[in-house]
Amino acid sequence: MTETRDPLVIFTPSGKRGRVAPGTPVLTAARQLGVDLDSVCGGRGICSKCQITPGYGEFSKHGVTVAPDALSAWNSVEERYNRIRGLTEGRRLGCQAQILKDVVIDVPPESQVHKQVVRKAATVRAITMDPATRTYYVEVAEPDMHEPSGDFERLAAALKEQWNISDLQPGLQVLSKLQPVLRKGEWKVTVAIHQGNHDARPKLLDLWPGFDEGGLYGLAIDLGSTTIAAHLCDLATGDVLASAGIMNPQIRFGEDLMSRVSYAMMNPGGDREMTSAVRDSINTLAQSIADEGKIDPTRIVEVTFVCNPVMHHLLLGIDPVELGQAPFALASSSALGLDARELGLGAINANARVYVLPLIAGHVGADCAAVALSEEPNKAKDMVLIVDVGTNAELLCGNADRVLACSSPTGPAFEGAQISSGQRAAPGAIERIEIEPATKEPRFKVIGCDLWSTDPGFAEATAQTGITGICGSGIIEAVAEMRLAGIIDPSGLIGSPEQVGSPRLIADGRTWSYVIHDGSAEGGPLISVIQTDIRAIQLAKSALYAGARLLMDELGIEKVDRVVLAGAFGAHISPRHAMVLGMIPDVPLDKVISAGNAAGTGARIALCSVAARNEIERVVREIHKVETAIEPRFQEHFVAANAIPHATAPFPELHKIVTLPEVSFNTSGSGEGGRRRRRG
Amino acid sequence: MTETRDPLVIFTPSGKRGRVAPGTPVLTAARQLGVDLDSVCGGRGICSKCQITPGYGEFSKHGVTVAPDALSAWNSVEERYNRIRGLTEGRRLGCQAQILKDVVIDVPPESQVHKQVVRKAATVRAITMDPATRTYYVEVAEPDMHEPSGDFERLAAALKEQWNISDLQPGLQVLSKLQPVLRKGEWKVTVAIHQGNHDARPKLLDLWPGFDEGGLYGLAIDLGSTTIAAHLCDLATGDVLASAGIMNPQIRFGEDLMSRVSYAMMNPGGDREMTSAVRDSINTLAQSIADEGKIDPTRIVEVTFVCNPVMHHLLLGIDPVELGQAPFALASSSALGLDARELGLGAINANARVYVLPLIAGHVGADCAAVALSEEPNKAKDMVLIVDVGTNAELLCGNADRVLACSSPTGPAFEGAQISSGQRAAPGAIERIEIEPATKEPRFKVIGCDLWSTDPGFAEATAQTGITGICGSGIIEAVAEMRLAGIIDPSGLIGSPEQVGSPRLIADGRTWSYVIHDGSAEGGPLISVIQTDIRAIQLAKSALYAGARLLMDELGIEKVDRVVLAGAFGAHISPRHAMVLGMIPDVPLDKVISAGNAAGTGARIALCSVAARNEIERVVREIHKVETAIEPRFQEHFVAANAIPHATAPFPELHKIVTLPEVSFNTSGSGEGGRRRRRG
Repeated sequence: MTETRDPLVIFTPSGKRGRVAPGTPVLTAARQLGVDLDSVCGGRGICSKCQITPGYGEFSKHGVTVAPDALSAWNSVEERYNRIRGLTEGRRLGCQAQILKDVVIDVPPESQVHKQVVRKAATVRAITMDPATRTYYVEVAEPDMHEPSGDFERLAAALKEQWNISDLQPGLQVLSKLQPVLRKGEWKVTVAIHQGNHDARPKLLDLWPGFDEGGLYGLAIDLGSTTIAAHLCDLATGDVLASAGIMNPQIRFGEDLMSRVSYAMMNPGGDREMTSAVRDSINTLAQSIADEGKIDPTRIVEVTFVCNPVMHHLLLGIDPVELGQAPFALASSSALGLDARELGLGAINANARVYVLPLIAGHVGADCAAVALSEEPNKAKDMVLIVDVGTNAELLCGNADRVLACSSPTGPAFEGAQISSGQRAAPGAIERIEIEPATKEPRFKVIGCDLWSTDPGFAEATAQTGITGICGSGIIEAVAEMRLAGIIDPSGLIGSPEQVGSPRLIADGRTWSYVIHDGSAEGGPLISVIQTDIRAIQLAKSALYAGARLLMDELGIEKVDRVVLAGAFGAHISPRHAMVLGMIPDVPLDKVISAGNAAGTGARIALCSVAARNEIERVVREIHKVETAIEPRFQEHFVAANAIPHATAPFPELHKIVTLPEVSFNTSGSGEGGRRRRRG
Repeated sequence: MTETRDPLVIFTPSGKRGRVAPGTPVLTAARQLGVDLDSVCGGRGICSKCQITPGYGEFSKHGVTVAPDALSAWNSVEERYNRIRGLTEGRRLGCQAQILKDVVIDVPPESQVHKQVVRKAATVRAITMDPATRTYYVEVAEPDMHEPSGDFERLAAALKEQWNISDLQPGLQVLSKLQPVLRKGEWKVTVAIHQGNHDARPKLLDLWPGFDEGGLYGLAIDLGSTTIAAHLCDLATGDVLASAGIMNPQIRFGEDLMSRVSYAMMNPGGDREMTSAVRDSINTLAQSIADEGKIDPTRIVEVTFVCNPVMHHLLLGIDPVELGQAPFALASSSALGLDARELGLGAINANARVYVLPLIAGHVGADCAAVALSEEPNKAKDMVLIVDVGTNAELLCGNADRVLACSSPTGPAFEGAQISSGQRAAPGAIERIEIEPATKEPRFKVIGCDLWSTDPGFAEATAQTGITGICGSGIIEAVAEMRLAGIIDPSGLIGSPEQVGSPRLIADGRTWSYVIHDGSAEGGPLISVIQTDIRAIQLAKSALYAGARLLMDELGIEKVDRVVLAGAFGAHISPRHAMVLGMIPDVPLDKVISAGNAAGTGARIALCSVAARNEIERVVREIHKVETAIEPRFQEHFVAANAIPHATAPFPELHKIVTLPEVSFNTSGSGEGGRRRRRG
């Protein structure tokens, strides 16, 4: 008699192993052993999500030899599937192939439920897929007059039996389509079930006849004061199908947040006007991004929102008036799970769910929470400072022990607003500048053209757009370069043509300004940096630096190990110039990292993962908020940070690269310096 | 040394007792001992819900003597309350009066949270108040810039601390008014919190500044095919403030349910037309009942619905087409918790909640479930048959061991429809009839007049309304009286003038009819019972009786102990006539009980009690549904029950009162009998 033992099955890459009864399908074995193998159709050979790759031959590492007949031969289901859809060479359907002898089974990444999606960002990090809404294929019992029961109740029973999903809750909108869909699918349907972290019961969002492959999609929306940006994601794979942005239509009620709050205070019903404007835009955006991604917008079943507190309140229909005055009380700071129709989002699925990330405080919004979710300062081993600059700057500083947050009133100067030649980042805007210290002559690049202004062909290449102004990153580089070239002194004062030794300095009232480009001959603008531009940038950078210093004081540290620049700002600004200006504390240049639109990334992570939603809610509760408005030290740091560079923080690393010229224009008899003296 | 012991406190009527530390407020003692003593303000001396009556002197039953100084003297809070509002003689505020010595404390019914409300119905039964939505007074911490938190989060923390209500969920609509109300109330507010049996988390429905006494109200709605009836109830006391009914506007799409189902099948969008018609009417009804009850309709925060399956689907926006054909599958039979705004109920509170009672089967609706909740056959010690007749009849039969349900296709004859002189119950309609067996002369009463037609002054009293037709209860009595007087034979055939011996029999084609009232001289109608009326009533009563017999067969019983007549029908029909006709099985006359509008009562019970909602959901799952349409025995019983009285069930009890005449008109050469003979 031969000794008979059940076959051994070893799954890779997990390494999980065990013995199963001969004839056990691979999918069943995977479930028994807790191996992450996907299936939407529940093992009916329809969905092909459970594809696996059996290994044959000698596996010395695992101590087994796999015979060619370790799995059952192809059956008719696999034959049909291969004929119609095509099965990759070497692959089997896990629900059909039966284990007969010892075998090693590889589960490819795309067959894992909790597959990891690598983010496209500077800091590569994987998102583990764990979406709130998933599809399930179910076969529902037909109605029986002898045992009367509702169609919904039989569907719920099938989900319990076939997928172990209990206590299903019907949406009223779905009940109205349930009966025709069940009959059209001949009692076989694909259902979309939502189970968010705020819901006690799984909710039936939608259903389609038969085995449906239309997919489920989600929108991750970064609702900014100026722009509304969205990613359209596949909720099964995490893939981004399309990204789009539109201007926030609330701009017509006020450029910055505080003017919108004022609008709400001064105009009865003004908050409702702004609420419906932004909701309309989101519908428009949803429709256009669905078109771009070539999907039916009713397949969008999830939306996540990140936004600053004022935008948060206006989105939700809450008057933001309290955010315009101390103590800046939020109506609610918690994460919210809502029905999309409560927000009037009619362009997407009628039962779509919305998740709004939590806010940190009255000035530190869900956008900052999303940055924390994306950049994970709470998991950092080193001390990290994360700077997210929009119209205001939000800062996070800390490490795995403790994270602090604050907002700094930088104003819109970093976005090119309130700058004499400033403009938004758009083709034709100067985005990069270099000034030759010897000649004080500038060269620059404009958005939409890869050439420097001194390169041959530049004029032709920019003929279409023209050279229209300076955007945010451009003005930062301009001021830093002017300081490096000795055109301004440490106090920020612009020197005269004689002091600087350049004809590019021209009188502007009682002060001087530096001409970067004179397009007047061609009918274009004269683009220059004037004294008040320098002052605006000094105020903004002082506020930013003071915020960072305040957090460092609270943490009891003198320096940080790493600076992460987030937001549109972060993606475009040169770390070197930021440090010349003294916007951020001194760190080695290679430790200044651009995270791109980290808030949008955080929205995308929350879209793809319920675990991430739980995590950010927990993390936000643990982040300590420091209120700059009531901290006397903020004022002290702010004043001390006015100079370029300021006195309290030298740049040892930077000094290896450049030396800031020791100039002073304070003795000049004309210009601002002179005027100041006369007043004093 | 005197031995010191803590004072003993005995609460009546509960009998709960225990020792508490001297100086303990009565309210605190009640909570410690689990005594049901109400409080909305949380012991702040504002709400006066905790009023108690201390007893003084000798209480031999309890073995204590209560000293005059057993409780602390009146304090300033009680003094002020008494001055402003007045405190009933002998009463104290439980939150202010402190226990100093042994004392007996009576909790009056109005101070109990779970007070019992006696129903106004034939069978007196108490409802224990346990509403889903209650008010709570809370004092909320003010915002603090040093510890930023949302207003909602501080409100939720206060509810947790002051009322032990955890995990509060905000409604989006409430968030938009939260901030102004908190500030207007100076951080003291009264909140309405909903905790239904389908909700995992308590939900903030609304809030008002300060200690609010505007009250919370609910609507219990019985949504019938013909009429929509509502009770407006105080959710704290259970009191009915107003009751009102309007016609169901869907009548214009079809008189009976099946014609409405047909309308939906034949007209695309027809179901949506009917849905919006009924929702509009409910809004109108809500507004008018609020006016009648002199309350603000936004104080209506709860609505319960009972309705038959077709009305259920049309209310919820579900096409009822499946209910028009076998197997009569419901979209959903479960109880539903919904937001009122999902049903477009804009006339009431924007965050009001709706509870729809569960359905039993495709023909046995939430109205029948509500009857079960009201009449509790599942708790009966005797065998009870409950008959609820609207346009169709629903029957419940059983006892504490087992309850069965079925519906019988009686058609609308019992409501006076499809009867030649029939009309709805309205002033001028004949509702009661007696026929003198000797003379065959009738006398009758009409709705709106207390006199019999033979009484002096009847003509004057009915001059205004006229005598316009016969309503449902009238036609039942008419047919039964005609049988008792020998005007019709057991087969239902009307005799000729010669056979009966009365000039009131007149020719009607080839059959005879019996004239009850000839108003043609005064320009009024000739009101008579014609042969087809008898046939319609025979069909209806046979269906009803067959349904009852079918359930009895299933239960293996030959007789029931008690019959409950529910619905408008039940309230007006005479049990004696119903038994003469053979509508219901034979029981002693005093065991036939009218329950009035039991469905409406069930809706009211569910409105006042979450426990009742849980109970009916459990009970409905246990009720076994018998489908008459597929039971061959139903047909057998139906045919056998055609005669008056039928052969299989004699009326021994009834025969003590009356003897049915042994007449037969089958040998007549004219009329229906003759025609039938010619055919056969």
